[in-house]
Amino acid sequence: MLDSLREAVCQANRELVHCGLVTLTWGNTSAIDRDRGLVVIKPSGVAYDLLQPPDMSVVDLDGRVVEGKWRPSSDTPTHLLLYRSFPRVGGITHTHSRHATMFAQARREIPCLGTTHADHFRGAVPVTRALTEAEVTGDYETNTGRVIVEQFATLDPVAMPAVLVAGHGPFTWGTDAGESVRNAVALEAVAEIALGTRLIDPAAPGLEPFVLDKHYQRKHGPAAYYGQKK
Amino acid sequence: MLDSLREAVCQANRELVHCGLVTLTWGNTSAIDRDRGLVVIKPSGVAYDLLQPPDMSVVDLDGRVVEGKWRPSSDTPTHLLLYRSFPRVGGITHTHSRHATMFAQARREIPCLGTTHADHFRGAVPVTRALTEAEVTGDYETNTGRVIVEQFATLDPVAMPAVLVAGHGPFTWGTDAGESVRNAVALEAVAEIALGTRLIDPAAPGLEPFVLDKHYQRKHGPAAYYGQKK
Amino acid sequence: MLDSLREAVCQANRELVHCGLVTLTWGNTSAIDRDRGLVVIKPSGVAYDLLQPPDMSVVDLDGRVVEGKWRPSSDTPTHLLLYRSFPRVGGITHTHSRHATMFAQARREIPCLGTTHADHFRGAVPVTRALTEAEVTGDYETNTGRVIVEQFATLDPVAMPAVLVAGHGPFTWGTDAGESVRNAVALEAVAEIALGTRLIDPAAPGLEPFVLDKHYQRKHGPAAYYGQKK
Amino acid sequence: MLDSLREAVCQANRELVHCGLVTLTWGNTSAIDRDRGLVVIKPSGVAYDLLQPPDMSVVDLDGRVVEGKWRPSSDTPTHLLLYRSFPRVGGITHTHSRHATMFAQARREIPCLGTTHADHFRGAVPVTRALTEAEVTGDYETNTGRVIVEQFATLDPVAMPAVLVAGHGPFTWGTDAGESVRNAVALEAVAEIALGTRLIDPAAPGLEPFVLDKHYQRKHGPAAYYGQKK
Repeated sequence: MLDSLREAVCQANRELVHCGLVTLTWGNTSAIDRDRGLVVIKPSGVAYDLLQPPDMSVVDLDGRVVEGKWRPSSDTPTHLLLYRSFPRVGGITHTHSRHATMFAQARREIPCLGTTHADHFRGAVPVTRALTEAEVTGDYETNTGRVIVEQFATLDPVAMPAVLVAGHGPFTWGTDAGESVRNAVALEAVAEIALGTRLIDPAAPGLEPFVLDKHYQRKHGPAAYYGQKK
Repeated sequence: MLDSLREAVCQANRELVHCGLVTLTWGNTSAIDRDRGLVVIKPSGVAYDLLQPPDMSVVDLDGRVVEGKWRPSSDTPTHLLLYRSFPRVGGITHTHSRHATMFAQARREIPCLGTTHADHFRGAVPVTRALTEAEVTGDYETNTGRVIVEQFATLDPVAMPAVLVAGHGPFTWGTDAGESVRNAVALEAVAEIALGTRLIDPAAPGLEPFVLDKHYQRKHGPAAYYGQKK
Repeated sequence: MLDSLREAVCQANRELVHCGLVTLTWGNTSAIDRDRGLVVIKPSGVAYDLLQPPDMSVVDLDGRVVEGKWRPSSDTPTHLLLYRSFPRVGGITHTHSRHATMFAQARREIPCLGTTHADHFRGAVPVTRALTEAEVTGDYETNTGRVIVEQFATLDPVAMPAVLVAGHGPFTWGTDAGESVRNAVALEAVAEIALGTRLIDPAAPGLEPFVLDKHYQRKHGPAAYYGQKK
Repeated sequence: MLDSLREAVCQANRELVHCGLVTLTWGNTSAIDRDRGLVVIKPSGVAYDLLQPPDMSVVDLDGRVVEGKWRPSSDTPTHLLLYRSFPRVGGITHTHSRHATMFAQARREIPCLGTTHADHFRGAVPVTRALTEAEVTGDYETNTGRVIVEQFATLDPVAMPAVLVAGHGPFTWGTDAGESVRNAVALEAVAEIALGTRLIDPAAPGLEPFVLDKHYQRKHGPAAYYGQKK
């Protein structure tokens, strides 16, 4: 069951390493089969170069393990809450990629300073509030998802497929596992470029809203003309 | 038709990746056959490792697709305006390479602080003015070319084969596709070194004009003695 | 004798290079057989790509060479003092990895600014005091171990498997050679991220103590649920 | 003639690329046969991956080409002046490696902030004065050598096998081509670590002189005990 989704999730997790986003075992990608209500996710703490599709864990939306010999990622409850809250999301990636994590630790949003950013994220990439002590000592991983969802009360997760969890690191998502990885790659790049931009000029201005709209629309809008026809 | 130019452009696009200038699909190289008035360019949004010479798009100088099954790069109108405006340019490269893009986002020129820079670019690498709202909502990619050309009213594109588009990223060019890529590589290096130089000393002085002239002349002047005889 | 330990130590030393922690020959990993009281360590100044298990040096806890055709690492006395002082340590790694060494040279601890750090190190990674002239001109490498042990008078080396020697670089340890390398990898990553965090915001706050505890406990505590069951 | 020296110089030039010190063709290594008074050096502007031992240029100490089908590196007169002035030097490397060049462009010496530095360079790595206009428009490459030698009036080139040419980049040397490359690798590393150290603490103190002496002596002094017996 879910063979092609296991294959895609396994491939996406290996891609994380290939793209330089992962140190040790700090990162995981999942994908959902909306019809079956099942999520395929990387097992916890297993080395990426050993991962094969049958190693993937399969859980339902309440976190019950349906298939797989390994424990699912310890971040699974965060993924599940995002899938339950963001119905158009098909894949989720969590990393501790260097520059995105710098912004998460500084508890600062990543400002939109250029078209590289605008091509992927419609505006500043938000950072969540810090979790309270009760949220941390309680159901920590689910509460991590809750502060993300709280942050998106006034944001569209399709137009903003990324968030920084304060003091922790980035989560990205997309229509499928591969897109969530590509958004993680883009996020790391725009974080690095934003940091360097501000080192050159701490007062570097944000991108003009009309350029932000133009770039977002030409790639993602109804009249998108970037890439090939679908 | 244009088989060797397709081969060269395909190779140059792959070289962009090999040199670490490209993340995801953020970059493209083109070349022109001046006799035929035809430009060969990377197709839009296609992964580099799948690119083969027959995949290259061929367009005329007005942007009409002459050959190729794929849409050409969405940046094609910018390339075409540069070919029409800079008659000695044979190849053009656009990337979002990290450090060059930092300067573009900070909307600062890259100062000439050393001989590494002087060997490739005769003076500070300029940054364009920002596009107006009308220019962005109008014929955006052609207008991107126009602000570049405007910036070169008093510059020689042969002596200064690079520009930063404000809030966007770098364009470089050369006699052919390969030289435009090598200039993109050099630009990224000098941007990184300039940023670090200013971190060590924010008041680091510009290179003396007579050293700038010497390095430029020994590599590109009529009595050049760098490299092998042509 | 000690064939499997030689194999593990040889592999761990090669892993140091593979993980990008080593320049030239600046790094070494050792492991101890507590029953025999023997330590296996990299030979001094030998290129990593030539290392084979039989090349490893074997010394007793007083530093006498028991087996091996090469001189052991010049840092051997430091390793030995740590093994004698920290009875639960099974493997030790010393590197000059770039970002950890930056903090060591700045003689600053690495503050715990996020969960990446908390997953591996329970609090700020300490930096030793500088050695006195007498300590340097005397039994230098053993004294390097002594200032580390002095620093741990009030620290648990199991909860804090890393230290920075002031003006020098990091030492990490773990239950075996492989874990000491993984801690060296984690240390370099958290040092890089901490530096970047402080570049974004020099006043970035430390991680809340309850998050630090949570992350440490979920990975290392008695009710750990990160990774697979042992 | 000089077959083994050509082999060593070719290998050293390729090693420059392998170690990440070279962008495009910005770097060259040479070595001298003191008995014959002949220097083997990389040809100018030739791609490293195509270099074979017979491609190496052979020149005498006055710069006359003795063997080789290619023009020697345009930096050859600088190498020759160093060989004539520093009789114990057997190999020389010139690069534009990123971080060493940052210090050269900032026209600042690289301070000795830690033992990584002290293991290779006995004190701060000096930066030359800027060349005058007459020196640049005259015999530029020889004059580049002259300002280096001038800087070493009170320095021992054996204890300090590196220099930064102001506004240009680093030269390193050693007993042979390979050692000059290893010193170039060490120089780049200590430059990067020094820059980061000062970002963490702009007032980070220099290494205590007695530690500097200790590290230098244990690796290079008459009672050296680092590495294997020669």
